[in-house]
Amino acid sequence: MDAFLVTHRPNIFYLTGFTGSAGTLLVCLAEAALVVDGRYAIQAREEVRTARVRIMRGDLLAGVAALLRATKRTRIAFEAAHLSVQQRHDLATSTGRSVRWLPVCGWVEKLRAVKDEQELELMQKAAELASGVFEDVLALIRPGVREVELAAEIEYRMRRGGASGPAFETIVASGPRSALPHARPTTKPLTGNELVVFDLGAILRGYCSDLTRTVFLGRPPGRIRRWYSAVRDAQEAARETLRPGVQAGRVDSAARRVLRRHGLLRYFSHSTGHGLGIEVHEEPRLAFRQPARIEAGNVVTLEPGVYVPGFGGIRVEDDVVVHASGARLLTRVTRDLIQL
Amino acid sequence: MDAFLVTHRPNIFYLTGFTGSAGTLLVCLAEAALVVDGRYAIQAREEVRTARVRIMRGDLLAGVAALLRATKRTRIAFEAAHLSVQQRHDLATSTGRSVRWLPVCGWVEKLRAVKDEQELELMQKAAELASGVFEDVLALIRPGVREVELAAEIEYRMRRGGASGPAFETIVASGPRSALPHARPTTKPLTGNELVVFDLGAILRGYCSDLTRTVFLGRPPGRIRRWYSAVRDAQEAARETLRPGVQAGRVDSAARRVLRRHGLLRYFSHSTGHGLGIEVHEEPRLAFRQPARIEAGNVVTLEPGVYVPGFGGIRVEDDVVVHASGARLLTRVTRDLIQL
Repeated sequence: MDAFLVTHRPNIFYLTGFTGSAGTLLVCLAEAALVVDGRYAIQAREEVRTARVRIMRGDLLAGVAALLRATKRTRIAFEAAHLSVQQRHDLATSTGRSVRWLPVCGWVEKLRAVKDEQELELMQKAAELASGVFEDVLALIRPGVREVELAAEIEYRMRRGGASGPAFETIVASGPRSALPHARPTTKPLTGNELVVFDLGAILRGYCSDLTRTVFLGRPPGRIRRWYSAVRDAQEAARETLRPGVQAGRVDSAARRVLRRHGLLRYFSHSTGHGLGIEVHEEPRLAFRQPARIEAGNVVTLEPGVYVPGFGGIRVEDDVVVHASGARLLTRVTRDLIQL
Repeated sequence: MDAFLVTHRPNIFYLTGFTGSAGTLLVCLAEAALVVDGRYAIQAREEVRTARVRIMRGDLLAGVAALLRATKRTRIAFEAAHLSVQQRHDLATSTGRSVRWLPVCGWVEKLRAVKDEQELELMQKAAELASGVFEDVLALIRPGVREVELAAEIEYRMRRGGASGPAFETIVASGPRSALPHARPTTKPLTGNELVVFDLGAILRGYCSDLTRTVFLGRPPGRIRRWYSAVRDAQEAARETLRPGVQAGRVDSAARRVLRRHGLLRYFSHSTGHGLGIEVHEEPRLAFRQPARIEAGNVVTLEPGVYVPGFGGIRVEDDVVVHASGARLLTRVTRDLIQL
């Protein structure tokens, strides 16, 4: 292999620090070139130290093809999960038969899954930002306030706290809408005696946090208290299983086992967690039968939930970092059912 | 062709109304199936009327492959620009030789480029939302306030006004940073006697707006007034050229011609505009030598700018819809240089 073409934006950010929305990185053994268009000429030179910046007019991949022709590189690895069939076709057309294209998968993602000290420090701050904002916003939660208003407050306060934006569209889902794991906030006002699920995260200097808490407006009936305990116990079981060397699927099944014991497994419609970092969903995935091994330095979410259609949902989600001895929490909000 | 596999999220939203983050649409002549995972079971059934919703466990494309085997469909078109080499490989592996995969490009994008009345109404509202928020935020612009604070205010107010989020990361770029066309807001406080570029947009019920204005804090020197006039004239020239049947590249060159006449062309590092709709960048592109023809119902931005490295930048951007007789503005903010 003569070079490695990196086209996935989070991977380019990881390798170079470039935060622009368009760029292509060509990594060779002795050097690397970041190809960007004129809009990013100044920014790329400011941000990037690990690669030479080359400004191209027009299509970036055509620029890469020209670079390959000029440097006579002929065996090029590319990110098969992050190059479209069309781009692959265009590249092959413009470089001709002289270049052999080798599909590879997950090379940079595998590096990214293990965070170094500097990354962990940032992720700690991103988690604290989301935690602090959620705790502050608790004061605004009351019957009559609309889901979208609370979402707007959360995103505003994260922004004011230094976030470049939310890590994903903030979820505020109340009453029956809390049964939708990925609900979008609506103009529905909160009422008394209902569940409200908050799922929020900040992007802080390129790294994400992801936090979910469930609130009950009023005095929760026994059934909801029992469901909540089951979800929290499921999260706790997953956290106790989490350590270097264990299979990701075992962490997922630890949570499932608790929910099954409470007769709630059929209400759990997603997986137990996911890696977190530059992307809000990355490696490792804590999913059913996932064979990948957990490593020290992984940062993952633990987020079991139960969703009862037409009634409501409960989810508790924290971010944890895996150490030699187990998992340490990055998010810092009470994990009890919050009654307001 | 027996079926068309749609994998691009904005295209799926356009065809079905589904707003979830994961889904795959298989369109056949008589019917369509939207394949989603369990997280979106309730939401997809709420949102989607034009396709049958099928819930699949695990990988969605594996679910699609199973569906194809079951229905004996053998010639399948797919979106070559929106399926990765890896996904294409996995699909081919799971369907075997019985299925022939036909790459196609831009089928749905071509439909999306021409907006209908209902879409135009939404886009008008999205443009008005951005316009109103910018006008309100003018009151907060003064020396000492930080770029990120203004960006947070803008995004918060768009949210409160009904946006599901910003259409892109809001730009507030002051002083020399305004020379970066895609600058991210920093903690830099505004000072007197400098340019500030604001670029903002809202997503309203799935449709984007995109507005740029340039502000000068203080009394602008003659040079800046001249540059500003040139940029505004360039935008005006592009707008006058814009009508059904004209080549997109001609609209771009109309703006370039004005900037060249003022000796500013070398400071214009991007293209004149882009289509706007479900995505913030879509067809048609108003770029150098772009041969595509403008059609009635296209919505585009017109956003020439000049960027002088180390000194500052000026950009003026509006959203317009193309009618039989010309272009009508959707954004509604004075196009004069704003002095504060």
